[in-house]
Amino acid sequence: MKDIGGIKGLVFDVFGTVVDWRSGIIRAGEELGARHDIGQDPGVDWAAFADAWRGKYAPSMDRVRNGELPWTNLDALHRESLEDLLVEFGVSGLPEGEKDWFVRAWHRLDPWPDSVDGLRMLGRHHVISPLSNGNVALLTNMAKRAGLPWDVILSAEIPRHYKPDPETYLLMPTLFGLEPGEVMMVAAHSSDLEEAARHGLKTAYVHRPFEFGPDAGAEAEWPDRGFDIEVENIVRLADALREVQG
Amino acid sequence: MKDIGGIKGLVFDVFGTVVDWRSGIIRAGEELGARHDIGQDPGVDWAAFADAWRGKYAPSMDRVRNGELPWTNLDALHRESLEDLLVEFGVSGLPEGEKDWFVRAWHRLDPWPDSVDGLRMLGRHHVISPLSNGNVALLTNMAKRAGLPWDVILSAEIPRHYKPDPETYLLMPTLFGLEPGEVMMVAAHSSDLEEAARHGLKTAYVHRPFEFGPDAGAEAEWPDRGFDIEVENIVRLADALREVQG
Repeated sequence: MKDIGGIKGLVFDVFGTVVDWRSGIIRAGEELGARHDIGQDPGVDWAAFADAWRGKYAPSMDRVRNGELPWTNLDALHRESLEDLLVEFGVSGLPEGEKDWFVRAWHRLDPWPDSVDGLRMLGRHHVISPLSNGNVALLTNMAKRAGLPWDVILSAEIPRHYKPDPETYLLMPTLFGLEPGEVMMVAAHSSDLEEAARHGLKTAYVHRPFEFGPDAGAEAEWPDRGFDIEVENIVRLADALREVQG
Repeated sequence: MKDIGGIKGLVFDVFGTVVDWRSGIIRAGEELGARHDIGQDPGVDWAAFADAWRGKYAPSMDRVRNGELPWTNLDALHRESLEDLLVEFGVSGLPEGEKDWFVRAWHRLDPWPDSVDGLRMLGRHHVISPLSNGNVALLTNMAKRAGLPWDVILSAEIPRHYKPDPETYLLMPTLFGLEPGEVMMVAAHSSDLEEAARHGLKTAYVHRPFEFGPDAGAEAEWPDRGFDIEVENIVRLADALREVQG
C-alpha cells in the first residue's frame, strides 16, 4: 500500500462500483416483460438486453464529449439508447410511460452488500460523494432509495463534462479547495482510476467480480494493479484508511 | 392555506431559515478575541461585527450579479468582506490562518432547534435540498457538522448565479425534470419567496423571529403574508404537508 495519508475527500464511481446495475436492469426488464406479455416465445434475454444497454453507455457519452451532441444528461442518453434496443430486441408497442419507467430503472439499482456500511464508515472522517456520469436526479433518487449516505452529489452534469474529461475529476478539488492528492477516486474500473491518477487524485481499486454477471469472470488480474489501495470491498477500504489516518 | 398538493421537492434558504448565522458568528468572534487578546479595552462588539458582516452579504453578491466581479464563491466574498471589517473594527495583526478559520465559521453554524427533525420528516416523502448562495463546500461541511439530512446540495455555485437570479430558483426543476409548481421554496425572508413565486415555485414562509438577535423583533407582521404556507418552524411545515399529501 502506498502513501495515502491526508485524504480529505473520497469520490466514487457508481455503476458497478457502488451499485449492481446489471441485476437491477434485468429485474426491471423481467417486470416489464411480465406486465406486457413480452419475453415469452421466443422471449427477450433481459441479461443480454442489460449488457447491450450498458454497451451503448460509453459511445453515447462520447457523442457529447466530441461535440456531436450538445450537453445531454444520462437519463436522456439512456432513453435514446433504449429506443434502439427495443427495435434490436424486437419489442414493440411499449407505452411512453413504460419507457420512462424502464429508463428510471437506472435510478433504482441496489447497492452491493458492503456499500452502505462502507460509506457510512468512510463518512465519519471524510467528505464522500459519487463522481458519476449519472445525472444529479438519478444519483439523488438512487441514494434515497438505497440509503447511500453521500455528503454531496457530484455528477458530470455539474461541470457538463463526462468522464474521462478532466473537469469532472477535478470537481471535488475545485469546489472544496483541496489539492487533487487530498482526494481519492474509488472505482472498480482500472481506466477510470488511471484517468483520475493522471489528474493527481489518489486511487482505490475495489474488486467487483460480479459486475458483469456470475459467469463473466470480471476483470481477472487482481491485485497489484498499481493503485494506491486495492481492496475487495468498501468496508475494507474504510478499514484501510482508518489504519493509516487513525 | 392554498393548494399545495403535488409537491415533490423542497428547497431551503439556509442562512436564517435553517441555521442561526448570528449566534455562530458571534461565538466564533468571541473565541477569536479570546485567543488573540482582542476584544478587551475597549472591546470588539462581536454582535455588531456579525451584523456588519451579514450586511455586506447582498452588496458583495450584487458585484458578481452585475458583472463587476467574475464568478466568486461565497467563501471568497466573505473573506474579502472580512478584511474590510477588521479595519473598520480596529482589529489588526490577525494571522492568515485565523482569518481562514473565521471565514469558515460560516460552515459551522448551528441549526435552529426544529431544523434537523423537520428536515428528516420532510425527507421521508420529498427530495430536500438547500438552495443557498453559500458555496457547495460550505453547505456540505455545515450539513455534516449539524446533521442536516439533505438529499442533494444545490447551491448558487452550480449555475454560478446568485439569488435572486432565475437560474438558481429554476435549478431543482431543471435538474429533476419537475414543473416549478412541484417544487416548494422555504425561507424566512419574504423577498426570497416572492422571487421564487415569480418563477412558479410554491412558497413556504418560516417565521424566525430571532434571526437578527433576541432584541431585533424580526420581521414583525406575521402571518398572512400571502405565501402558500406560513408556519412557525420546519416541523410544522412537515405536519402541514403531511396533512395535505397523506
